[in-house]
Amino acid sequence: MVSAKMYELGTKKSTIRTIFEFGRKRAAEVGEENIFDFSLGNPNVPTPDFVRDAAIDILQNYEPAQVHGYTVAPGNPNVRETLAQSINDKFGTHFAGKNIFVTSGAAAAITICFKALAEAGDEFITFAPYFPEYKVFVESVGATLKVVKPRPEDWQIDFEDFKKLLSPKTKAVIINSPNNPSGAVYSKETIKKLTDILKDSGQDIFLICDEPYRELAYGVDVTWVTDFYDNTLVCYSYSKSFSLPGERIGYIVVPDEVADFDKIFGVIAGAARVLTHVNAPSLWQLVVAKCAGKAVDITPYERNGKILYDGLIDAGFECVKPQGAFYLFPKTLEADDYAFCERAKKYDLLLVPGADFGAPGYFRAAYCIKTETIERSLPLFKKLAAEYRG
Amino acid sequence: MVSAKMYELGTKKSTIRTIFEFGRKRAAEVGEENIFDFSLGNPNVPTPDFVRDAAIDILQNYEPAQVHGYTVAPGNPNVRETLAQSINDKFGTHFAGKNIFVTSGAAAAITICFKALAEAGDEFITFAPYFPEYKVFVESVGATLKVVKPRPEDWQIDFEDFKKLLSPKTKAVIINSPNNPSGAVYSKETIKKLTDILKDSGQDIFLICDEPYRELAYGVDVTWVTDFYDNTLVCYSYSKSFSLPGERIGYIVVPDEVADFDKIFGVIAGAARVLTHVNAPSLWQLVVAKCAGKAVDITPYERNGKILYDGLIDAGFECVKPQGAFYLFPKTLEADDYAFCERAKKYDLLLVPGADFGAPGYFRAAYCIKTETIERSLPLFKKLAAEYRG
Repeated sequence: MVSAKMYELGTKKSTIRTIFEFGRKRAAEVGEENIFDFSLGNPNVPTPDFVRDAAIDILQNYEPAQVHGYTVAPGNPNVRETLAQSINDKFGTHFAGKNIFVTSGAAAAITICFKALAEAGDEFITFAPYFPEYKVFVESVGATLKVVKPRPEDWQIDFEDFKKLLSPKTKAVIINSPNNPSGAVYSKETIKKLTDILKDSGQDIFLICDEPYRELAYGVDVTWVTDFYDNTLVCYSYSKSFSLPGERIGYIVVPDEVADFDKIFGVIAGAARVLTHVNAPSLWQLVVAKCAGKAVDITPYERNGKILYDGLIDAGFECVKPQGAFYLFPKTLEADDYAFCERAKKYDLLLVPGADFGAPGYFRAAYCIKTETIERSLPLFKKLAAEYRG
Repeated sequence: MVSAKMYELGTKKSTIRTIFEFGRKRAAEVGEENIFDFSLGNPNVPTPDFVRDAAIDILQNYEPAQVHGYTVAPGNPNVRETLAQSINDKFGTHFAGKNIFVTSGAAAAITICFKALAEAGDEFITFAPYFPEYKVFVESVGATLKVVKPRPEDWQIDFEDFKKLLSPKTKAVIINSPNNPSGAVYSKETIKKLTDILKDSGQDIFLICDEPYRELAYGVDVTWVTDFYDNTLVCYSYSKSFSLPGERIGYIVVPDEVADFDKIFGVIAGAARVLTHVNAPSLWQLVVAKCAGKAVDITPYERNGKILYDGLIDAGFECVKPQGAFYLFPKTLEADDYAFCERAKKYDLLLVPGADFGAPGYFRAAYCIKTETIERSLPLFKKLAAEYRG
């Protein structure tokens, strides 16, 4: 009587959700402070004061109709200009307001791009480990997601496998750097090699850059991809940088250089319309424009990442050094990552199996939690590791 | 290379958009005050102070993570409880938080319902005149929209035509009362007759009530439909009542009595997921809960409606008396409503042809504008009418 597919999508609990609920149950039994929940990518650095102050200033001093009225679908024209300028200031680019489509966060931004581009039979390619909602969103627009196998030594790209998956059906390639769940940041060499392969393909393949973690990089540069490849769409969100995940505000950059700008901007507008975009939340459009380019303090994440990394290495884990986002993606101590994460639960260490991200044999630990919780978890990781040494 | 359908949806200018742009151009030529723009349904009553005060209080006094963090997809549990209670207080119903799914406005709410319910080959039925995006949204989920012909004497329902369109393929019926564009409010008799027909059909047909104008009714009751029919989904938005159209906040009511509550709530969650809902904007969830049940001052709209109605009748127009929303839907003075609205432009009267809403021979005049603008427009409507009397 109703869509079986929608039912499955709406009711099948994700692994992360199941872990989260286990954590809530355990917290009720043993106390919140005894649960070491590394499962959620929810930023724990508070929203900066300048963001709150901007919101209050706008509410107190602007005309309500200017704050809360509909904007045109791509966003308030002044906001679009300001966001373009702040990108230009940072990356030396030359975008104008017309190159920005303001969205309700990055999930909407990437799905609008998928819906805009997809025709029946199209394939999208991404790289393991990857954010599992990509598969849901790509399939929801009638396309197929192909996944390049992981490169565990540094979580950069396995180009040989990528070339095997490229086909005349490839409509777009999705990258996510800094990466959820690996924490890797794609090097300039990786981006250059990837875009060279796309250029050499002789096809108009789109490169969709999902960049909600752009500002969260520790001592490495996050390469600005439109400098390397014309057919690039950059999707951004303020969820992580400004700790505003609940407010749903982000944007798509559509460069002049994409194959047929008017056409691509048109399909993006059409896709947004059927995805019931209407407009991105209007107060938050004004707030992020007012705060555009302001520096975000990422030192709490950097410190957490270092403490957890050092602790895990000390306990005998293998792990690529954190470069960005707020995740570590270490090797599990047995081949079955689900079994490993189950075993970790004995110590109330809540971890997510890598198989959920297309990379079995690893686990994701989100370190966007209290530093003190991380510190107190380290002896437990040691005990867990000791079990495996027998 | 990209979806032709998305391109058309993203680039084909709507009539309203074309009129709006004409208005902007004329305003630059002759001055804002000489444009009589009745084309847009953008509320002109400012957002109530209690809404602004609630937002500022939350920003100043709540923990940022509680305000701006992700909520679970159906919404903050406390918010859902509060909204359910406020509906119960008003309508004597017995909803709980679990019956509420908080959405990014009514466009998202109705489309989530469409996507949740639709299977290939399904038909949805609505009643002319109707909000034209229904067709876009219904078709985007792979179903077909069937439109019952209008009943111009009172803009209630033509039941004979409705019965003709009912078929085994009918998945859902969409009603919108108070109505955009007619301004009609469906009487209790209309709702009773409609739901009796649905009950007699022997099918599990859903009734989707699109109610963004619920609070905007002048001296008539807006019937609460779940009292009449089990399989009812009520979609609401704060866009009009709290003048927050840009913020995208509303909800779906899923009563316990729908055929298989768990299944229906599940498909709604799945549909929301693929429509990139994530969660409704989190600050606004808290704000509307804090303001739930507070009275809204609709007297400015009521006064405007009366002035415009009296003025049009005086000028010789035929029009059903305003009952709700902020629209009048009078008969055009020639059969071709596009030609009539073109002619009205000579006087800088910007009106929307009824054909856009599936009711040719009428025009929509949105009276959510300055009272003084309406008063100054009346002599122009008289001049326009005089042209037709020759």
